[in-house]
Amino acid sequence: MLDVTHGDTHGDTLGDTAGIDLFQILRDGRPRTRSELASLTGLARSTVASRVESLVRLGLVRPVGDAVSTGGRPSSQFALNASGRVVLGVDVGASHVRIAVTDLSGKILAQDSVAMEVAEGPAAVLAWVATAGRELLKKANAASTDLLGIGVGLPGPVEHATGLPIDPPIMPGWDRYDVPQNLGEQFGVPVLVDNDVNIMALGERAASWPHIDHFIFVKVATGIGSGVISGGLLQRGAQGIAGDIGHVYVPQGDDVPCRCGNKGCLEALAAGPAIARTLRAAGLDVESSADVIALVKAGNTDAIRAVREAGRTIGQVLTACVSIINPAVIVLGGSIAQAGEHLLAGAREVVYARSMPLATGQLQISNSRAGANAGVLGASMLAIHHALSPERVDALLASTAR
Amino acid sequence: MLDVTHGDTHGDTLGDTAGIDLFQILRDGRPRTRSELASLTGLARSTVASRVESLVRLGLVRPVGDAVSTGGRPSSQFALNASGRVVLGVDVGASHVRIAVTDLSGKILAQDSVAMEVAEGPAAVLAWVATAGRELLKKANAASTDLLGIGVGLPGPVEHATGLPIDPPIMPGWDRYDVPQNLGEQFGVPVLVDNDVNIMALGERAASWPHIDHFIFVKVATGIGSGVISGGLLQRGAQGIAGDIGHVYVPQGDDVPCRCGNKGCLEALAAGPAIARTLRAAGLDVESSADVIALVKAGNTDAIRAVREAGRTIGQVLTACVSIINPAVIVLGGSIAQAGEHLLAGAREVVYARSMPLATGQLQISNSRAGANAGVLGASMLAIHHALSPERVDALLASTAR
Repeated sequence: MLDVTHGDTHGDTLGDTAGIDLFQILRDGRPRTRSELASLTGLARSTVASRVESLVRLGLVRPVGDAVSTGGRPSSQFALNASGRVVLGVDVGASHVRIAVTDLSGKILAQDSVAMEVAEGPAAVLAWVATAGRELLKKANAASTDLLGIGVGLPGPVEHATGLPIDPPIMPGWDRYDVPQNLGEQFGVPVLVDNDVNIMALGERAASWPHIDHFIFVKVATGIGSGVISGGLLQRGAQGIAGDIGHVYVPQGDDVPCRCGNKGCLEALAAGPAIARTLRAAGLDVESSADVIALVKAGNTDAIRAVREAGRTIGQVLTACVSIINPAVIVLGGSIAQAGEHLLAGAREVVYARSMPLATGQLQISNSRAGANAGVLGASMLAIHHALSPERVDALLASTAR
Repeated sequence: MLDVTHGDTHGDTLGDTAGIDLFQILRDGRPRTRSELASLTGLARSTVASRVESLVRLGLVRPVGDAVSTGGRPSSQFALNASGRVVLGVDVGASHVRIAVTDLSGKILAQDSVAMEVAEGPAAVLAWVATAGRELLKKANAASTDLLGIGVGLPGPVEHATGLPIDPPIMPGWDRYDVPQNLGEQFGVPVLVDNDVNIMALGERAASWPHIDHFIFVKVATGIGSGVISGGLLQRGAQGIAGDIGHVYVPQGDDVPCRCGNKGCLEALAAGPAIARTLRAAGLDVESSADVIALVKAGNTDAIRAVREAGRTIGQVLTACVSIINPAVIVLGGSIAQAGEHLLAGAREVVYARSMPLATGQLQISNSRAGANAGVLGASMLAIHHALSPERVDALLASTAR
C-alpha cells in the first residue's frame, strides 16, 4: 500500500545488488573512475575493481582516457562500451520484413529487407529472419557470441509477458506461435516481441525525440494504431493493447462496418482501404492503399482531399488522446501519413481547433522522421533495454564467473 | 538514447547510495535481518548496523521479533515502522475542505472537515488548514517533529514541478499562489500539491485497488475530470493536465457552450449543472447539482433518466480512454456518481457496447469505494511517497548525522 506512485517499476530495482548498480550507473555513457564508482555504490575499492574488470571482459564497459595510449599504468576511467556488443531488430509488417543489426546505442550497422506477406506464416518468415540475421552479423563483423538479444515487432496484438501473438487478425498461422522460442533456439539469446506500433513508437522516439517523455506515435496504413509513451515509459495497459485507437467509435461513421465486427470505428473511416473506397465511389480506379499513395504523390486533388479528410477524422480521436495523455509530441507515421503532409494538415486542423489551449500551446504534431526505419530501430531498442537490464547483466556476470 | 523504455524513472535511482536502498528495500513492510540487508545491498555488516540504527532513531524502521520481549540480545529483525511518523492530507474542494492525519501506511488517525468556498481565497482556506492540522496532530498524539510532510489537492490545474495552481477557473485569488511556501513555513515540512482528481485517483487506488496498475478515476460533480494511473504511476502529462477529459468534444452537443469557451465539451453536456439544465427544461425546479442529487435520491424518474443519459455521454468518452489506456479498472466518483448507480449504469452500457472485446473482457467499471475520503487519502499518499523517497530519507539521515 505504501509505494502507490511507483508500483511495480520500483519493485524491479529492489532485488539489485550494488554490483549491478555499478553498470546501471555507467549506462548514461559518462566515463567514471573506480573511486567515483566506489563512492557512488558504497562498495569496497577491490570489489569495484573486480566488477569493472568482469564488465570489460564482457564487452559492456571499456577503459577510456589517455592512460591506455601511453602504455603506462592502467586506464583510470571506464564507460559504457556501446560498440562492444550488438543486437538484432526485426520489423515484421503486413507485407514486408526488415531486419537490422545495431550496436548498444541503437546505431544501425547493417540492414536488409524483403517483400513478404506475414500471411505466409511464421515458419517462412522466421526462416528468412534467421538467414538474414546471420548474414548481417557477418557483414557487421560481429561474432555470434557478440549478439546480446533480438527484438521483434509483429503486426498484431502481442501478450507482453510471453511475447505470443494473440488472435492477430491479419496473421493466419501466427496465433500463439512462440517466436521467442523459435529465434531463441537458433541464436541462443533472449528474444523480445511486441506489437509493431509500440516498436515504431520506441524507434521514432529514440531516433528523433529522445527527451520527450509524453509521446504518441500513430501509424496510418492498412489499419490505424498507436504507441503511447507516458512518463518516459511505453504504456501497454492491462491486456497489452493500450493505444489501440483504430477501433474508437467516430459518430459520423455510424453505418460503416469495420473488420472488427463493430460499426463506425476510426479505422473503418480513415485508414488506407477507407480512403480507397471513398475514391472508388468518386469514380477513380483505386484498389489499395498503394493506389491512394500513388495518386496523392501524382497530385490528384480528389485523393489529396480524401487523405486530408481522413486526417480530420483521425484528429477527432486525437483530441481525446490529447486530453487523456497530454502529450508533448504526436508523430504520424505509416504509408498514408508519409504520402506528403496532407494527413498531418487535416489532423492538425482539428486538434488545434478542438483541444484546450493549455494542452496544445506547446504540442507538436509532426510526420515521422525515422520513416521506414522506425520499426527496426524500436525493435533493437527493446532488445538493448532488456540486455542491459540489471537482471540480464547479473546473469552475464554470473556466467563468466563460473 | 539508451535507456529508452525506462526514461527518467530509471534515472531517479542512479544517484542512490546503497544505504538509501537499504531503506527502500524495507519499504515493502517485510522484516529482515541485518545480514539479509547486508547481502541485498552488498554493504559491510558494520555499515548496515549503523544505518539501521539511524533509521530506527528517525522512527522510520523498528525492531521486530521476540528477542526484544525476552530482554536478551538485541532484536534480530527490522521492518518499516508505519506508525512511527505521520503526514497530513488536505483535500480542498470547490465548497469544502477536508484534512486528515495519517500514519505512513495511509491509515487515517484523525480527520476534520468544513464547508468553505475555495473562492474565499488562499489566506482564509490555508488559515483553517493550519489550525485544523495542529489540532489533528494533537488528537493523534503526534508531536510536530513527527510530521514528515503535507499533501494538498486543489480543484484546478496545478503545475507539477512547483505545486502552483495555474489559471484555475473556479479559484479566484489562487492563481500561482505558493501553497507549499505558506504551509511549509508554518509546519517546517515539504508540501506537495496536485490536482484534486489526481489526488482522488491515488487515494481510491491505495484504499481499494492497490494491485491495479492501469486505473482511471473519473470525478463527476460540478465539473468532470479524471486521474490516470498507467504502469503503476500517476500520469500527469507534458503540462500536468493529463486526464482532463471534461473538455473532450462530444458531437451530439455541438451547440452547447462550455465555460472553457469551446462548444460541445463533455462537461457542458454531462456534469451536474448540465443535468440541472436538462431538468429545468423539463419543468422541474432544479438549480444546482445538489438539487439533482436530492431528486435522484428521492426516486424522481426524470432525474434518474437524466443522470443515466449523462452516464451514457461520459461512456462515449470513456470508450476512447479504454482504447488509449487499456485500464483494468475505471472508478466513477464525485457527488453525481455517488447518487446511486445510475451514472455507472449509463457509462457501462456504452463502454461495453462500443469497446473491443479484448479491452473490456476483464474491465471493471465501479463506483468509488473510498467516497468522500478519496481526496485526503490520496493527498496523504502523495506526502508519504515523497517523504519516503531515497532523496528525502537521505536528507533525514544526513540531518541526524550532523
